[in-house]
Amino acid sequence: MVKSSPADLVTATDQKVEEMIISSIKEKYPSHSFIGEESVAAGAGSTLTDNPTWIIDPIDGTTNFVHRFPFVAVSIGFAVNKQVEFGVVYSCVEDKMYTGRKGKGAFCNGQKLQVSGQKDITKSMIITELGSNRNPEVIKTVLSNMERLLCIPIHGIRAVGTAAVNMCLVATGGADAYYEMGIHCWDMAAASVIITEAGGAILDATGGPFDLMSCRIIAASSREIAERIAKELQIIPLERDDGKNTD
Amino acid sequence: MVKSSPADLVTATDQKVEEMIISSIKEKYPSHSFIGEESVAAGAGSTLTDNPTWIIDPIDGTTNFVHRFPFVAVSIGFAVNKQVEFGVVYSCVEDKMYTGRKGKGAFCNGQKLQVSGQKDITKSMIITELGSNRNPEVIKTVLSNMERLLCIPIHGIRAVGTAAVNMCLVATGGADAYYEMGIHCWDMAAASVIITEAGGAILDATGGPFDLMSCRIIAASSREIAERIAKELQIIPLERDDGKNTD
Repeated sequence: MVKSSPADLVTATDQKVEEMIISSIKEKYPSHSFIGEESVAAGAGSTLTDNPTWIIDPIDGTTNFVHRFPFVAVSIGFAVNKQVEFGVVYSCVEDKMYTGRKGKGAFCNGQKLQVSGQKDITKSMIITELGSNRNPEVIKTVLSNMERLLCIPIHGIRAVGTAAVNMCLVATGGADAYYEMGIHCWDMAAASVIITEAGGAILDATGGPFDLMSCRIIAASSREIAERIAKELQIIPLERDDGKNTD
Repeated sequence: MVKSSPADLVTATDQKVEEMIISSIKEKYPSHSFIGEESVAAGAGSTLTDNPTWIIDPIDGTTNFVHRFPFVAVSIGFAVNKQVEFGVVYSCVEDKMYTGRKGKGAFCNGQKLQVSGQKDITKSMIITELGSNRNPEVIKTVLSNMERLLCIPIHGIRAVGTAAVNMCLVATGGADAYYEMGIHCWDMAAASVIITEAGGAILDATGGPFDLMSCRIIAASSREIAERIAKELQIIPLERDDGKNTD
């Protein structure tokens, strides 16, 4: 089925996996809150409170899933007092389990992760996505942002189709940065702690502090790279996940 | 080291792997010809003759290799009378061995490959690359080609950074097409037979017949998709691999 655009897909599997995850956590922690992609699509709220909250994307990379393109992840983040305490991203086809816990490091299948530490944008490889928005003005901005980065120049741009895996690739050192606008808190929550625990920096696409509900992120191997990318990005107007007014 | 642009990288490993492959084949087949990426960079000719010819890319995805982005392949095609008879693409980090032989099918780790068969461009996922050319005019054309495809609309665009693996992903059915201009015969030779043996179609980016030495390709799950993509592409002026004049 399609959601916001002909390129924004959802399957019965997304809904089934989310129900399964939420119901099994609820059994153990009946007082906790949940923000899940499919529950929100079905009308549930997505305001992040101080209550312990599980932030869930049952299938990150649904378009990949539909096409059998081999990058699909389950992403589960856990926040208390609006701070993500730990996150798990399972890249299913690759069978890679990424985990991160505040102050305790980040791991992939048990191996400690470390970002590349690259600070020179001209030697960087950057991941981003074309996204599922098919508004011609938005597409123009997405592409002109890529153009400005390529012309710095940088080594290259990659796109594998899932925000969570993209961020985990930066955490492994396999790429130096990932940025995107138009994603959601469930795409970023788990991987945000994985990348910071791997030594990376996260910023808002404006260059300001990262805001989980702002629908945009720059996740990089260093603060220098993140700030340099922010300087090039033209901001795409977006509704926030929590419905608050944007400034 | 850099070659044609700050984003066109080569390492000592590329050169070493190519030497190793060519010398071990030469021992067995002293009369055969070779076209290898690094030999050509070092000044060897790259004219395809009727003589049995091994067409070799020792590391397809050198930028990925430098960054440890997990898609890197060895690509070896074998042509006789200018026709590719078989091809092998080994995606090293994934440990996937893709093979194809004319009239005998295409396989990945022994499993038979079949393209998706998708004919509807609006339901397609397409792979392409931003490439390593940093000429601002070329970048503009690369991005405007993406823009026209996204606006059809299509489901999405992916880029993993190696032409050979991109083509093999189409052969598996994981994506519906791959196109690029500015690649070389050693990027395409092996995978061209893998994709046709998996039931796919290959065309020149102009929509005409595929030409191994033209530096451009559309490889798709169906002729319909390939032709539809050709209709949208603005052609980037390129030197041919064999140095012949382009029309």
